[in-house]
Amino acid sequence: MITTVCRKERFNSAHRLYRPDWSDEKNDEVFGLCARPNFHGHNYDLIVKVTGTVDPETGYLMDLKILKDMIRDEVIERFDHRNLNLDVPDFKDLNPTAENIAQVIWERLRSRLKQDLDLSVVLYETERNFVEYHGK
Amino acid sequence: MITTVCRKERFNSAHRLYRPDWSDEKNDEVFGLCARPNFHGHNYDLIVKVTGTVDPETGYLMDLKILKDMIRDEVIERFDHRNLNLDVPDFKDLNPTAENIAQVIWERLRSRLKQDLDLSVVLYETERNFVEYHGK
Amino acid sequence: MITTVCRKERFNSAHRLYRPDWSDEKNDEVFGLCARPNFHGHNYDLIVKVTGTVDPETGYLMDLKILKDMIRDEVIERFDHRNLNLDVPDFKDLNPTAENIAQVIWERLRSRLKQDLDLSVVLYETERNFVEYHGK
Amino acid sequence: MITTVCRKERFNSAHRLYRPDWSDEKNDEVFGLCARPNFHGHNYDLIVKVTGTVDPETGYLMDLKILKDMIRDEVIERFDHRNLNLDVPDFKDLNPTAENIAQVIWERLRSRLKQDLDLSVVLYETERNFVEYHGK
Amino acid sequence: MITTVCRKERFNSAHRLYRPDWSDEKNDEVFGLCARPNFHGHNYDLIVKVTGTVDPETGYLMDLKILKDMIRDEVIERFDHRNLNLDVPDFKDLNPTAENIAQVIWERLRSRLKQDLDLSVVLYETERNFVEYHGK
Amino acid sequence: MITTVCRKERFNSAHRLYRPDWSDEKNDEVFGLCARPNFHGHNYDLIVKVTGTVDPETGYLMDLKILKDMIRDEVIERFDHRNLNLDVPDFKDLNPTAENIAQVIWERLRSRLKQDLDLSVVLYETERNFVEYHGK
Repeated sequence: MITTVCRKERFNSAHRLYRPDWSDEKNDEVFGLCARPNFHGHNYDLIVKVTGTVDPETGYLMDLKILKDMIRDEVIERFDHRNLNLDVPDFKDLNPTAENIAQVIWERLRSRLKQDLDLSVVLYETERNFVEYHGK
Repeated sequence: MITTVCRKERFNSAHRLYRPDWSDEKNDEVFGLCARPNFHGHNYDLIVKVTGTVDPETGYLMDLKILKDMIRDEVIERFDHRNLNLDVPDFKDLNPTAENIAQVIWERLRSRLKQDLDLSVVLYETERNFVEYHGK
Repeated sequence: MITTVCRKERFNSAHRLYRPDWSDEKNDEVFGLCARPNFHGHNYDLIVKVTGTVDPETGYLMDLKILKDMIRDEVIERFDHRNLNLDVPDFKDLNPTAENIAQVIWERLRSRLKQDLDLSVVLYETERNFVEYHGK
Repeated sequence: MITTVCRKERFNSAHRLYRPDWSDEKNDEVFGLCARPNFHGHNYDLIVKVTGTVDPETGYLMDLKILKDMIRDEVIERFDHRNLNLDVPDFKDLNPTAENIAQVIWERLRSRLKQDLDLSVVLYETERNFVEYHGK
Repeated sequence: MITTVCRKERFNSAHRLYRPDWSDEKNDEVFGLCARPNFHGHNYDLIVKVTGTVDPETGYLMDLKILKDMIRDEVIERFDHRNLNLDVPDFKDLNPTAENIAQVIWERLRSRLKQDLDLSVVLYETERNFVEYHGK
Repeated sequence: MITTVCRKERFNSAHRLYRPDWSDEKNDEVFGLCARPNFHGHNYDLIVKVTGTVDPETGYLMDLKILKDMIRDEVIERFDHRNLNLDVPDFKDLNPTAENIAQVIWERLRSRLKQDLDLSVVLYETERNFVEYHGK
């Protein structure tokens, strides 16, 4: 019985999109409003999906309390109420696009999960713009 | 033309998580607040997804009215405004975790659907905790 | 500058509607499915609204962290993952309809708030059924 | 690094479901309320999902502004505030069921996207009835 | 104990905004896309709010099942899966703007409710455009 | 016929809460995580409510397209994809709490609306924390 359990969490961060090796004009052209110098921000919604076998003894695939704590340690405490560009080492040399944030979150959580579990993340930058990453 | 049609329904049930063959201490340790003896409850949101070929004559994969009635017969009338542990025979010897509820729903609906259709269910216990089951 | 600050919280409880001094038939007739003997349950959404004057020094009407803690102490720890009829003394002799739950919550929070603040609560039993109480 | 980026858009349209080569009785029998002659309507929610490789230079799979403009040209300007049966040539000989609308949208967008990108669409006719189409 | 109970319902209708005594140009100028001749449509969300005294015997202000049936008779059966301009006599000489639809619904429900109850309606034409009417 | 028409808009901004005349310790104590020096951010949801008399000729209280444009000019173009503390003159000497942001928005829109219309704003900083301001 292969099942997927999902947990939704949230974090509120500032960011901007730009490459320091590009001119301001090129950053504006590629990233538009998102390149503005003094940052903007989002209420990010994160859905973490873990796929595996349900334990017949408990009826749990995994205790969602454990998954919640893992997300808190790896994501919320590092990203929430922070500036992704300035405060989070993961983005020191990585543009914090939704695609890249999702990949960073996936890799952080992947390293904490048992190998026989599959992992996906869905990251909503806004209600209308979101990304899915499965690590493949 | 393979398509998926989806229908969202709801039911409101009481439940608790525990194993009668475990001590209260062990149930508390594993299931936490969910093991409390007098039950708690949820507004469960259920999404049923059916995948197959669209009938070129009608433009329907299947009439969602039929799917709605099937969900009503198999799920809503059995689970809604009931205690999953005490009132629903499916959980007489099965802990009503979201994982197990999703599997029970999947099996009930699977037996009613034509064999050439694929079936998935998504079950939200809360907005933040949910499971997906594809019967594989 | 009179403003209203609002905080949304959630709790998951079992309940049933009935009067012990009525026959089963009368309870069924008045409360329908909600009278079923073994309880059902809900994900209650609670919005607490506090109205008053903004402190010009901080720009806060009140720190929502304090309001959150107050709701946790008075509501969440007493109601969440419990059976309202059996576990919560407030409903020992009070039918836990949404109307009555909202009034109980209002009175609990009213006693904790400063007198110059106004209080309203909105309580969602489901997305489609909800009540508002202003204490008037 | 294979990722999926998603964009949600909306359009408001009138439609009815029926086949002109069927009798009114047969249309009523198959399509029920949806066959009523003077049309009804929906706020359609559309989610477009594009899967491919993230550009390491920008951190974008594709600029969602470009995807938004593509959806505006191919879907919103053709479908929004229109009658799907009477105003939209795509449905001249095609019953505008959710399944068929999703397929039409998929084909319109497919023709505009680079070949190395995969495309899915999710179309909500209501919050409770929706379809997914992957072009397979 | 004055409380408000609220019930959310939905209907799906086609409509257009225009005055038959105006030229097409004037209708276009005032009502824009909403004046297009072949109609468009919406998933209308309706919240009906009834304010009064809670019955201490039942803990109900009024049985929401009765309110639901009243809304079904007065609104859903008349408006749902219909064309507001062509099928609904209330709009024979009344432009079906959200403001006017809300007023019509309020008057229909007002005539059915006991005089000591207050009534408000909130009508969502889309998630972003909505109106409130209190009959004052 | 007094009615209220409502329009929902969104903006994404960075901010932090602090008073420059306070020590870092005092800012931390009062504003907690919100005082962190490099900013965080939110997807703000704004609902603007205008109350007045419906024009019997059009059935409109006011054209929501005009309200939308007014919000775009006064709020979106000034606040969206910006840092409220650094980029928006309104907050040069005003702490950008939700209470203060709501008041600033109310005053900007008030100056643009006809005097016989009443105005309220609801500002969601997150789904769980929001404020209402009526200018009274």
